[in-house]
Amino acid sequence: MKVSTGASMSIDGFVSGPGETGFEHLFDWYGNGDVEVPTGHPEMTWHMTRASADRNKRWLDELGALVVGRKLFDFTNGWGGKHPMEVPTVVLTHNPPTGYEDNKWFAFETGGIEAAIARAGELAGGKGVGLNSGRIASQALDAGLVDEVWVDLVPVLLGGGTPFFDQLGTKPVLLDGPLETVQGNRVTHLRYAVRK
Amino acid sequence: MKVSTGASMSIDGFVSGPGETGFEHLFDWYGNGDVEVPTGHPEMTWHMTRASADRNKRWLDELGALVVGRKLFDFTNGWGGKHPMEVPTVVLTHNPPTGYEDNKWFAFETGGIEAAIARAGELAGGKGVGLNSGRIASQALDAGLVDEVWVDLVPVLLGGGTPFFDQLGTKPVLLDGPLETVQGNRVTHLRYAVRK
Repeated sequence: MKVSTGASMSIDGFVSGPGETGFEHLFDWYGNGDVEVPTGHPEMTWHMTRASADRNKRWLDELGALVVGRKLFDFTNGWGGKHPMEVPTVVLTHNPPTGYEDNKWFAFETGGIEAAIARAGELAGGKGVGLNSGRIASQALDAGLVDEVWVDLVPVLLGGGTPFFDQLGTKPVLLDGPLETVQGNRVTHLRYAVRK
Repeated sequence: MKVSTGASMSIDGFVSGPGETGFEHLFDWYGNGDVEVPTGHPEMTWHMTRASADRNKRWLDELGALVVGRKLFDFTNGWGGKHPMEVPTVVLTHNPPTGYEDNKWFAFETGGIEAAIARAGELAGGKGVGLNSGRIASQALDAGLVDEVWVDLVPVLLGGGTPFFDQLGTKPVLLDGPLETVQGNRVTHLRYAVRK
């Protein structure tokens, strides 16, 4: 089972700017092309360049389940009931929320990052597991559980905020690649393997 | 006069790791190819891939003078008397050192980043001015004086240290590009324009 983490990142390494800002720049490439990309939410359709849409499809084709943090889950209000990528989503949390007992899309895991990834693996139907950036990505990398890093590099300097790998413990971490370099509109899609 | 800043940078945005570490990874591409690249120091020859050597030559062809910080100047002990790129080098400092009165390669500027860049421009012989990363780059960017950012992106996570743009004041800063993407061995050379 392949475990990958991916995110839109500024040149200076942030997946969100100071005070949860900068998303209009980081996610510009989701909307600046002419290829319609539907999501699991009928009211939300992306418009990517052909290059970005193809790259996004490769990411989704490999993706069987997600592991996300509680902060993002709360920030998006549980994406209104399911993640837009329409895959089972394991939320790592100390205190599972109530009200999701009948929701088939979310599972809540209190046993730490290894348990969360294992559970996502069971739900992934033979495909890979995708991880949130931030603390989730760092914890998994520290545990030696990340195989690939997909960086959507955006030409903006945010000057602070949340790093892609937040509070990394074991360092440095050598990567190999890029295995792939794809140029979109205001994004360079890079894919790296984590050297084990 | 074009003003550019360039540096080898980790995926997570650092030009040196915690406690001045990580240089063996950041500068690996200076020595992992088979093209000999002489420097201003006879005892120091780089060995780059053809792609990196050509890119390095484009950088040098445009470069007429440098602006560096006092910390780097001291850390390298004044590069033994001249910068390996063999161009006039303006050192931004509050207290000019003694012992360099007869050295034609170095100028010491106490008047701030704008004065340092102006002085480098006078010394550049019609070519461009190159800036150190770190505080120098941030101060110049905050002053609206940077035209291009050359990033040599290295597949390593350093997890801390000195950011390429250290303590950026005005943010976010939008860039355009990459104007150029060149793949070397363990480095992806990217070049961006600063949007004004």
